[in-house]
Amino acid sequence: MATSFSDAVKRLLVGRPFRSDHFRAEALPKRTAMPVFASDMLSSVAYAPDEILLSLAVSGVVALTVSPWIGFVLGVVIVVVVFCYRLTVRAYPGGGGDYEVATKNLGRRFGLAAAAALLVDYVLTLAVSMTVFSGYLAAAFPVLAEHRTLVAVAGIVLVTIAGLRGSFATRSVLGLPTYLFIGAVCVTILVGAVRIASGDVPEAATSGYAVVPEAHADTMLVGLAGVFIVLRSFSSGSVALAGVQTVATAVPRFAAPRGRNAGTTLVITGLLSALMLVGLTWLAGRVGVVYVADPERSLVTPAGLPVGEDFRLDPVLGQLAQAVFSGAPFMFYAVALIAALVLFVAANTAVEGFPGLASRLARDGFLPHQLATRGDRMTFTNGILLLAAAAIVLVVVARADAPQLIQLYLVGVFAAFFLGQWGMIRHWSARIRRIVSSPTRRRMHLNRAVNAVGLVIAILVLSVALVTKFFAGAWIAVVAMVVLYLGMGSIHRHYTRVERELAPDEDENDRRTLPANIHAIVVVTDVHKPTLRALSFARATRPTFMSAVSVAVDEDAADALAKKWDALELPVPLTVLDSPYRELVRPIMNHIGSIRRRSPRDLVVVYIPQYIVGRWWENWLHNQTVLRLKSRLLIVPNVVVATVPWRLRSFNRNRDSLLRRAGDIDSKALDTFR
Amino acid sequence: MATSFSDAVKRLLVGRPFRSDHFRAEALPKRTAMPVFASDMLSSVAYAPDEILLSLAVSGVVALTVSPWIGFVLGVVIVVVVFCYRLTVRAYPGGGGDYEVATKNLGRRFGLAAAAALLVDYVLTLAVSMTVFSGYLAAAFPVLAEHRTLVAVAGIVLVTIAGLRGSFATRSVLGLPTYLFIGAVCVTILVGAVRIASGDVPEAATSGYAVVPEAHADTMLVGLAGVFIVLRSFSSGSVALAGVQTVATAVPRFAAPRGRNAGTTLVITGLLSALMLVGLTWLAGRVGVVYVADPERSLVTPAGLPVGEDFRLDPVLGQLAQAVFSGAPFMFYAVALIAALVLFVAANTAVEGFPGLASRLARDGFLPHQLATRGDRMTFTNGILLLAAAAIVLVVVARADAPQLIQLYLVGVFAAFFLGQWGMIRHWSARIRRIVSSPTRRRMHLNRAVNAVGLVIAILVLSVALVTKFFAGAWIAVVAMVVLYLGMGSIHRHYTRVERELAPDEDENDRRTLPANIHAIVVVTDVHKPTLRALSFARATRPTFMSAVSVAVDEDAADALAKKWDALELPVPLTVLDSPYRELVRPIMNHIGSIRRRSPRDLVVVYIPQYIVGRWWENWLHNQTVLRLKSRLLIVPNVVVATVPWRLRSFNRNRDSLLRRAGDIDSKALDTFR
Repeated sequence: MATSFSDAVKRLLVGRPFRSDHFRAEALPKRTAMPVFASDMLSSVAYAPDEILLSLAVSGVVALTVSPWIGFVLGVVIVVVVFCYRLTVRAYPGGGGDYEVATKNLGRRFGLAAAAALLVDYVLTLAVSMTVFSGYLAAAFPVLAEHRTLVAVAGIVLVTIAGLRGSFATRSVLGLPTYLFIGAVCVTILVGAVRIASGDVPEAATSGYAVVPEAHADTMLVGLAGVFIVLRSFSSGSVALAGVQTVATAVPRFAAPRGRNAGTTLVITGLLSALMLVGLTWLAGRVGVVYVADPERSLVTPAGLPVGEDFRLDPVLGQLAQAVFSGAPFMFYAVALIAALVLFVAANTAVEGFPGLASRLARDGFLPHQLATRGDRMTFTNGILLLAAAAIVLVVVARADAPQLIQLYLVGVFAAFFLGQWGMIRHWSARIRRIVSSPTRRRMHLNRAVNAVGLVIAILVLSVALVTKFFAGAWIAVVAMVVLYLGMGSIHRHYTRVERELAPDEDENDRRTLPANIHAIVVVTDVHKPTLRALSFARATRPTFMSAVSVAVDEDAADALAKKWDALELPVPLTVLDSPYRELVRPIMNHIGSIRRRSPRDLVVVYIPQYIVGRWWENWLHNQTVLRLKSRLLIVPNVVVATVPWRLRSFNRNRDSLLRRAGDIDSKALDTFR
Repeated sequence: MATSFSDAVKRLLVGRPFRSDHFRAEALPKRTAMPVFASDMLSSVAYAPDEILLSLAVSGVVALTVSPWIGFVLGVVIVVVVFCYRLTVRAYPGGGGDYEVATKNLGRRFGLAAAAALLVDYVLTLAVSMTVFSGYLAAAFPVLAEHRTLVAVAGIVLVTIAGLRGSFATRSVLGLPTYLFIGAVCVTILVGAVRIASGDVPEAATSGYAVVPEAHADTMLVGLAGVFIVLRSFSSGSVALAGVQTVATAVPRFAAPRGRNAGTTLVITGLLSALMLVGLTWLAGRVGVVYVADPERSLVTPAGLPVGEDFRLDPVLGQLAQAVFSGAPFMFYAVALIAALVLFVAANTAVEGFPGLASRLARDGFLPHQLATRGDRMTFTNGILLLAAAAIVLVVVARADAPQLIQLYLVGVFAAFFLGQWGMIRHWSARIRRIVSSPTRRRMHLNRAVNAVGLVIAILVLSVALVTKFFAGAWIAVVAMVVLYLGMGSIHRHYTRVERELAPDEDENDRRTLPANIHAIVVVTDVHKPTLRALSFARATRPTFMSAVSVAVDEDAADALAKKWDALELPVPLTVLDSPYRELVRPIMNHIGSIRRRSPRDLVVVYIPQYIVGRWWENWLHNQTVLRLKSRLLIVPNVVVATVPWRLRSFNRNRDSLLRRAGDIDSKALDTFR
């Protein structure tokens, strides 16, 4: 196959195309599926503790006593939520997740709302994961600290390329970071616990540092303000729940029995997440980790001095590793790199999830058709590129600041969760009514109770997130969801309308009767070979009436043209149209208008010679008027615009490379195009 | 005539279209032509003194003693130059200026070089005029001082709109500011001179201020460094000569005898310019005007304190008016506003000159054809817009800083001047050889001597400008000229090559023989009305062979399509092409390839249904693949791409406004398109 340089680069990056008939999505056993799809959820313990401490920081030292409790409550919530989703994936193993549940049980509108929330979430998963990824890389390589936005964007680009390849081949490799991460976190917690139990309490590098109190710090943690801060911290920490959707939408990828396997994976993941989160927040409290958003402004050293510009505040997990393994500094780097790796894998799940959901929506007619077609590697190329673009915009606008992005994150997660749980309750209620077997009914009642608890939790966290985060950024996510929701609605209405409009009539006549006469019009701008070719092609179709038309933009030029035309003794007379205002398009439109007035049911075929150039800038030198004329002609009914290409020598000189660059032409066909 | 809102706005801004046959450029008597075309040159005394003082500022108080001498030398140079150009305009009254002179006497390459220099100059004239304009407006209305870039850009937009209207009607109004300006400057100089003579020496507001010496100030004005500073100041001041070209290219607009009238205008303008420049620099020296680029950094008050952030340094002319009319502060505002007005008129000359030269170059095949066509007001719309865009970019990049823009200005002016003088010497030499009449010969010898002096001056100033300004910004202008020169060369080669390539052959056969067979191929993506219409249109042309082709991107969808096709019992069989890699374009290209292999001399007409949508965003939902297919098909030889438009109901609903928005369709024709 003829290949060009750009083609070679593409192949190098994304690999050989896959044939449709050779393609079968592999089903993954639990031990491979778990680490891959759970990575999103598990990796969140790399930043959830930071968010908890950050939100509490204004309250000073109290943070360290409150944070473990918040961690504990979150752990409990995680466990409840995974049990809820376990029911979802077992009942709906199709991989539609909350979109499917809401659509089937609550109707299309709610399903669309869930889809909008999920789409926004996927974008944020990618943006947040790669932002935190850049933070861990910067912790390991301080030289990167100043270029975090760039690192995060580079990460998105990398994970996008991996997504475009379609990463089936590297599956088992992807599992490794997750296992390593679980190991690293657990070892950190264990060693820390052992050292604390043995009286050798590790001390965080920041343990003596104090947080500069904010303006109204005296009223902090008193009354409503205190409640607000604790709730805000809780909602920030609940980012740890975001990844649960990823498993729910990945069900079709599990080995059979898919629902059961996915459910088990969910529960294991949830328990692990909860354990690690509780452990890390507890340990952070004991070793005195301090974490703030802007150390330069709001942190002072134990001596009471500002920390200065060059001060570097590592993520909580990094600080813990440093404190716990104070004798082995290498462990800090290992933990930071493993965290970066697992975040990369987590980002990859978003790159799989978003295009999958988008293609489902596109097939259902809610998004443009282009999102539904698989590229040559069987991946949904357009969806992946759209996701990457949106994530890059977010990261750049937020300057790779994770806390800021996380403000946007939660509303979508819990909105989808809320719709999903509500849908599940309806699901059980509908089934309970139809079932007589008493043990089954009892199990269903139990399940409905679990989902009801989930619904209550969803409502609570969603309200907390809306109240505490709305003006801090959540409104952006809400606006994005509303826009998506409305947009998908109108796209669907549009497609439906068009489909109905274009359906062939029952009446046969329309299809059988042909236009009586054909008027061929050749547009002449000069007497040269392209015009002569257009003329002979038009004559070859033997139209009923035939004319060559030129516009007298310039009187002298028009006379010269007419003389040249006559000199060649061409078999078609030239009609010169008057153009007092030096326009080219209007006289031709008027001419066609007059033909249509005389014979409205005839077909008018307008032949337009167009130069095909060899270099991009040559387009500025040719074809400009012709392109405008074409776009105008298309709005005339019963007109066919026939473009007669003329390949300029500059095209012919670069012909082979140009034909090849076109990419989608095989060499056998190419030979006939020379 | 049906008009849309955007059309109404256009008409409001640029006025009714002019008919070609009603249009005749008015010839202007001297008293009207002088102020208009001289405004560019005369207005330069509103900034040339500033440039002289600015360049000398580093040398401290000495500036005030040296600057009048520089002004005097410049005055002499101006007088010599206008006498040189007087000869040019009398010998070449065609309005081509140095481009014409260089082309006719030195050959096409030198002509092109002159043209490149002139084009760059016009852009700089507009940019510099409007930048200084914003400076004078800011002097009159200090509130504008912080928004000078915006004011300058707004000025460019205004003058562009005036240019698009074509300002024949307002000609005599345009003359007024110039006369006012000459009056204001002369009165300022006279009153100043009278006051000085009577012992009541006015004192400039900045007279006591000192310039902070630069690092090596001790060596300033000593030896080479001193010479360099004086030369730099001289070259900066020679910006006063820039406008001379404007008169030279405006010759065709003068009343007959054009050359003589234009020449006289030139001499009057030059003498006035020289007088005003000498007067202003002399006066500035006497009243102690201080002018620097960055007052906050390099100016201290008489008490030795820095002037501070809010200090406002007015242009030299403004300072002079303030000092001279110390009893009538209103005069300061009058002078500032008059200066702003005359700069606006000067900018207008660039808006006339650039498109004129560009259209001349386009007609000669050195620039894209679009620049040669007049818009509906008989102005060269594209050229004006190009000029405005370039000037806006310059102003924004330089943040409306006149001294910085002037660094770019001079090289082009004197490069064109140099080529023009050289050409004139050749012109005389060629004529002297052919003439026997002794008095005529003697006059020609004299003329040649004048032009030789001009040539020497051009070489001197050009060298000084290159040496003193090259790294300060002149290199940008040089690069722009070289790029333009090379670009115009390759555009010309391209057009010439294409013209030769497209010329009809002598051989008649090519024109008479038609393709033997016609293969009509209808591309089918779905069985709906647009496809059926394309099918019946294709059938109406009665092709030799006819097929309907669809691509099996998705097996199931392809089967469904084939069934629908059969159900309608259409008279054309459907060919379903295999697409193992889910591509749409490649199988169709291969299909056409196989037709071409079997019968390479046949004509292939590909019918493609295309939706015409009513709202811009609907294009994202349709037509994407079709457009790619069309661009690919155009590179196949002997293929005609026939687009069969289908107007969606969303188009029909907005039909009237959409048809009207198309703009170039008359209502009579429009009725037939409903």
